[in-house]
Amino acid sequence: MSYSPLQTERYKYKPKLPEVLKGNIHKIGINPKGSTKSETNQKELSDMFPRTYGAPFIETLAVDNTLESKSINIGVVLSGGQAPGGHNVISGLYDAMKKANSESKLIGFLGGPSGILENKTLEMNSKIIDQFRNTGGFDIIGSGRTKLETTEQFDICEDVCKLLDISCLVIIGGDDSNTNGAVLAEYFKQKNSGISVIGVPKTIDGDLKNEYIEVSFGFDTATKTYSELIGNIEKDANSSKKYWHFIKLMGRSASHICLECALQTHPNIALISEEIEHNHKSLTEIVFDMVNIIVKRSELGSNYGIVLIPEGLIEFIPEMKQLISELNSLLAEHAEHFGTLHTFEVQSRWINRELSRDSSYVFSTLPNNIQRQLLMDRDPHGNVQVSRIETEKLLIQMVASRLDEMKSEGKYKGSFSPQDHFFGYEGRCAFPSNFDADYCYSLGYNTYVLAASELTGYISSIHNLSKPVKEWTAGAVPVTMMMNLEQRHGKLKPVIKKAMVDLDGKPFNEFVSKRDIWAIKSSYMFPGAIQYFGPHEVCDVSSITLKLEGNK
Amino acid sequence: MSYSPLQTERYKYKPKLPEVLKGNIHKIGINPKGSTKSETNQKELSDMFPRTYGAPFIETLAVDNTLESKSINIGVVLSGGQAPGGHNVISGLYDAMKKANSESKLIGFLGGPSGILENKTLEMNSKIIDQFRNTGGFDIIGSGRTKLETTEQFDICEDVCKLLDISCLVIIGGDDSNTNGAVLAEYFKQKNSGISVIGVPKTIDGDLKNEYIEVSFGFDTATKTYSELIGNIEKDANSSKKYWHFIKLMGRSASHICLECALQTHPNIALISEEIEHNHKSLTEIVFDMVNIIVKRSELGSNYGIVLIPEGLIEFIPEMKQLISELNSLLAEHAEHFGTLHTFEVQSRWINRELSRDSSYVFSTLPNNIQRQLLMDRDPHGNVQVSRIETEKLLIQMVASRLDEMKSEGKYKGSFSPQDHFFGYEGRCAFPSNFDADYCYSLGYNTYVLAASELTGYISSIHNLSKPVKEWTAGAVPVTMMMNLEQRHGKLKPVIKKAMVDLDGKPFNEFVSKRDIWAIKSSYMFPGAIQYFGPHEVCDVSSITLKLEGNK
Repeated sequence: MSYSPLQTERYKYKPKLPEVLKGNIHKIGINPKGSTKSETNQKELSDMFPRTYGAPFIETLAVDNTLESKSINIGVVLSGGQAPGGHNVISGLYDAMKKANSESKLIGFLGGPSGILENKTLEMNSKIIDQFRNTGGFDIIGSGRTKLETTEQFDICEDVCKLLDISCLVIIGGDDSNTNGAVLAEYFKQKNSGISVIGVPKTIDGDLKNEYIEVSFGFDTATKTYSELIGNIEKDANSSKKYWHFIKLMGRSASHICLECALQTHPNIALISEEIEHNHKSLTEIVFDMVNIIVKRSELGSNYGIVLIPEGLIEFIPEMKQLISELNSLLAEHAEHFGTLHTFEVQSRWINRELSRDSSYVFSTLPNNIQRQLLMDRDPHGNVQVSRIETEKLLIQMVASRLDEMKSEGKYKGSFSPQDHFFGYEGRCAFPSNFDADYCYSLGYNTYVLAASELTGYISSIHNLSKPVKEWTAGAVPVTMMMNLEQRHGKLKPVIKKAMVDLDGKPFNEFVSKRDIWAIKSSYMFPGAIQYFGPHEVCDVSSITLKLEGNK
Repeated sequence: MSYSPLQTERYKYKPKLPEVLKGNIHKIGINPKGSTKSETNQKELSDMFPRTYGAPFIETLAVDNTLESKSINIGVVLSGGQAPGGHNVISGLYDAMKKANSESKLIGFLGGPSGILENKTLEMNSKIIDQFRNTGGFDIIGSGRTKLETTEQFDICEDVCKLLDISCLVIIGGDDSNTNGAVLAEYFKQKNSGISVIGVPKTIDGDLKNEYIEVSFGFDTATKTYSELIGNIEKDANSSKKYWHFIKLMGRSASHICLECALQTHPNIALISEEIEHNHKSLTEIVFDMVNIIVKRSELGSNYGIVLIPEGLIEFIPEMKQLISELNSLLAEHAEHFGTLHTFEVQSRWINRELSRDSSYVFSTLPNNIQRQLLMDRDPHGNVQVSRIETEKLLIQMVASRLDEMKSEGKYKGSFSPQDHFFGYEGRCAFPSNFDADYCYSLGYNTYVLAASELTGYISSIHNLSKPVKEWTAGAVPVTMMMNLEQRHGKLKPVIKKAMVDLDGKPFNEFVSKRDIWAIKSSYMFPGAIQYFGPHEVCDVSSITLKLEGNK
C-alpha cells in the first residue's frame, strides 16, 4: 500500500480537542441540566418515547473524583452518504475508549446498518485506526442505506449486540438515521436490554442542525471543495470572458450548500430553493429573472457568468411539484391505458387532456426532452424520477430559448455560450478540513464519555464552533427534543426536523444584501484549494454560514 | 474588492528563483553555445528562416562585467487557453525589468493577440502586478485565440510596437502561438525592424515539450487539481462501493494529462489515446477491454471503479477517424441532397449506402444518439463536431449494453451503475502550485535577460526542473530547432512538433507496469488538494511525469 505525500503528512496531524476533553479521561464526567421538551407535539412525543422523552441536557465537564473506567464494548456504524470526518469520529472514540481502559473494544459494523443485522463486524485496533486518521471517505468499515425501523430489526440488533457484549451502539448518520436511533434507544430501554444508543450528526447537506447542533460534520469540507472548483471556474470565466457556467451542487433538499458556496465565491446568480418556494416562483419566472441578469451583463459587455443551482430545486417550484404529483397519480391510475400509447406524441396528447389546466400549461412550457423524460423515465413504482432531471441543462435550454426570442425581437445582442457542471462526489470524501478533523475527533472523543455515562437517546454535541477550538464545549442533546411529527407515507411519524435555509437568518440575509451587486459586476471570490497547513487564517477558518450563525 | 484568505496569503509568497537568476541583475548575461539545427527538414526550415535558423543555444549565467541596463519597453501577450502561472510569468518579467532599470515599461496587450492588432494595451505597474502575483487565470490582461499568421498582421504588429517603442514582444502561448511567434521573429528581422520576439511555453495539455523544454507551465497545477478530484471520487467509490465513475479529462490531443492523473491516482482503467492509435484498436475492442475488467472486478465483489478518458480519444481511434473523415466529405459533397432528407431514418439509410463498407459497419455499432449527433450536429462548415461528442457517455452506453448482453447470456451477474464527469475548467485557473509559481516566475525573470540581450526567435527555458529550484538552470532555445514541416490545410507548414505520449517513455512504461494490478485490485491513491504551505514533500513536489522523465 502506498500513500500520497498529503496522506502521509495528514497521518501526523493531531486533531485539536476542546479544553474540557483534554484532561485526564478518568476525570471527565457529565452534568445533567434540568429536563427538555420538544418544540411541538409534546404530548404525542412524550407518549411515543415514555422512557427517553424529557431527558436532561448534558454538559461534559471535568469532575473532581476519579471515575471508574470499566472495560466496555461499543459498536459503531456509519449510515448513509459519505461526509468528510467520519474516520475522525471513529478514531476519537477509539482513542478515548482505549485511554480509559485498554480492555475496551470498539466494534465496527460493516457496510452500514445492514452490518448489524447480518452481524458483519471488524474490531478496531490501532493498526486499522492509524490507516484512516484524518482521511476522507467511509471505507474504514463502509456505509449503507438500510433503515432500522421495524421491531424485528430492533430485536436482531439487540441479539447481535448482546452476542458481542456491546453496551452502546454509536450511529453516525443524518436526520433519518438519528431518528431511527432514538426509536431504537427507546425500544432498548423499554426492553431493559442494557444497550444504549448515541448518535453523531453527519451530513454534507447541512440540514441536520438546530439550536443545539450548530452544524453537521462534513458540511465544512464539502462546501470548501465545491467553492474551490467554483472559484477556479469563475477565474476561468473572468479570463476567457466567453462562457456562462451553470453549476449544480449536491444537496437533495435544503440549499445550505448552495448558499454557503455563494457566500464563499460571489457568483452572479445563486438560486435558493427555499426562497423560490416561499415566493411561489414559476419556472418561467426563475428563467426570466436569470435572463434579466444575463442581458444586463451583456449590455455591459460581459457575455459570461456563473450560476449556482441547488440539486433539489425542481421540487421546490410549486407548479413543478404540482405537475409531478399529478403525473404520478395519472400514470399510476391509468398505467394500463398509458402502456398502450406507444409514441411520445400520443402520450403527451393524452397527458395534456388529463392534467389540470395549470399543470397542462406548465408541461407545455418545458423543453421537449424534459417532457419526454417526465413521461418515459420512471422508477419501478411508476413515479417520475425527479432526481434524474438535469436541472442545470433544463435551465440552460430555457434561458437559451428565451434569449433567442429576445434576439429576434432586437432586445438582446449578446452571445450566450453555456457550460454545465455538477459537483457532488468530488466533495463528499475529501480529506477533512482542519475544522472537520477537529470537530469530528472531538465528537467521537465526547461520545465515549456519553457512552461510559450510560446515556441513551442522545446526540453527541460540540458547541461554540465559531470560536477557536480551545473555547469549544462538549455535551449531549436528547434526540426527542429535536423531533416533531410529520406525515410520512400517510402516517404521522416522529422525525428530527430538517433544517431548511432560514429566510430570516443571517447567512441568507448576508447573501441577499450582496447578490444584486454580484449579479451585475463580477465580484468573484477565489477560495482556492483547502489548506491543511500554513497560516491560521487560511487553514483553520470555519464556514461562513457557521461564522454568521455563531454571531447571534 | 475583497480577497479570500488563501489569496491574501498567496500575495505574500516569494517565488523561488534558480541560483543563476538570484544575483545582481546587472551581472546576469548570456552565453551562446554553438549552432543548432532542426531534427528533420533542415534544408526547408533553413530556407524558410534564413535569418533565425541555426541560432545558438543560450545559457543564462552570471557575468563578471556589469552590463548596461538600458531602459526598454517590452510588450507581453497571453495567447490561447488559460494555464496556471501566466500571472507569474508577467510578474517575474516585470520585477526583473524594473530591477534593471526603473524607466523600463512592460506593456500588456489586452485580450490576446488581437490586442496587438487593435493596439489595446495596459501598462503594468506595481499596483496591478501585486494584485495578480501567485494567482491563477489570465485576467490581468486577458487572453484570446486570434492567430498572427499573415504579413498584413505582421505589419500591423510592427507599426504598433514602433508606436509604443516596444523592442521586444513576449508571447506566452502554446505550440501554435510559439510557431507563429518564430515566423514573426523572422519577418521582423528580415525587415530590420529592431523588434525581437521571445516565447514562453504555456499549456496545461503538456504537449509543448521536447528535449529542450521539460514541461510547459500549467500542466503541474492542472493535473494536481484533476487528481485531487479523481482521488476524492475514488475514495467515494471505495466507500459506497456502488458506482463506476467515467471521468473525461481535458486535453484536446495528447493524453499527457490523463497519464499523469493515472500515475497520481491509480485508477482501474485509464485510456491513452496514443496507445490506442498505435495498436489500431477499434471502439468495440476498447469497450470489450473495459468490460473485461468490469466483469472481473464484479466477480471479486467489486461493482465499482474509476475510468479515466482523455478528451481527444475519438480522433485517435483509427476507424472513428476514418468514419468522421468520410462523413465530412460526404456531407460537404452532397450538402444539397442531404438537406432534403428530413428524418434521421432517411438520413442514416442514405449515409449507410454512401459510406465505405468498414465505416458503414462502424456507424452501425454506435448508439443511436451518437449517430444522430454525427449527422445533425455540425459546425458552420458542415463538419462533424468531434469535440462535442460526449465520449464518456458514449463509452458508458456501449459498456452498459455489452454488459446487458453478457447478463442475458449468464456471463455477468453484477450491477453496473455509471456516473460521468468532465474535468477541464476546474483546473485551468487554479492558484498555481508552488512548482508552477516558481517555474513561471523564473521563466518571466529569465525572459527579461533574453530580451535585454536582444535575442529573437527563442523560447525562454528553465532546466533541471525535477531537481530543487536552486539547481535549476536558465537559458533559451531557438524555436526553429524544435520545428518540422507538417501538412496543414493542404500546405506544408513549419510547426513546433507536438509532443505526444511516448510509448517508449518512462511515464507510460511505469503506468503499463502497474495498470493490470490497479485494474483488478483497488489500489487507489488520494492526492488531496494542492498544498501551498507546509511540509516540503507535500507542497513542493513536481508532477510524476516530470520526475520520471528527469531521471534519464
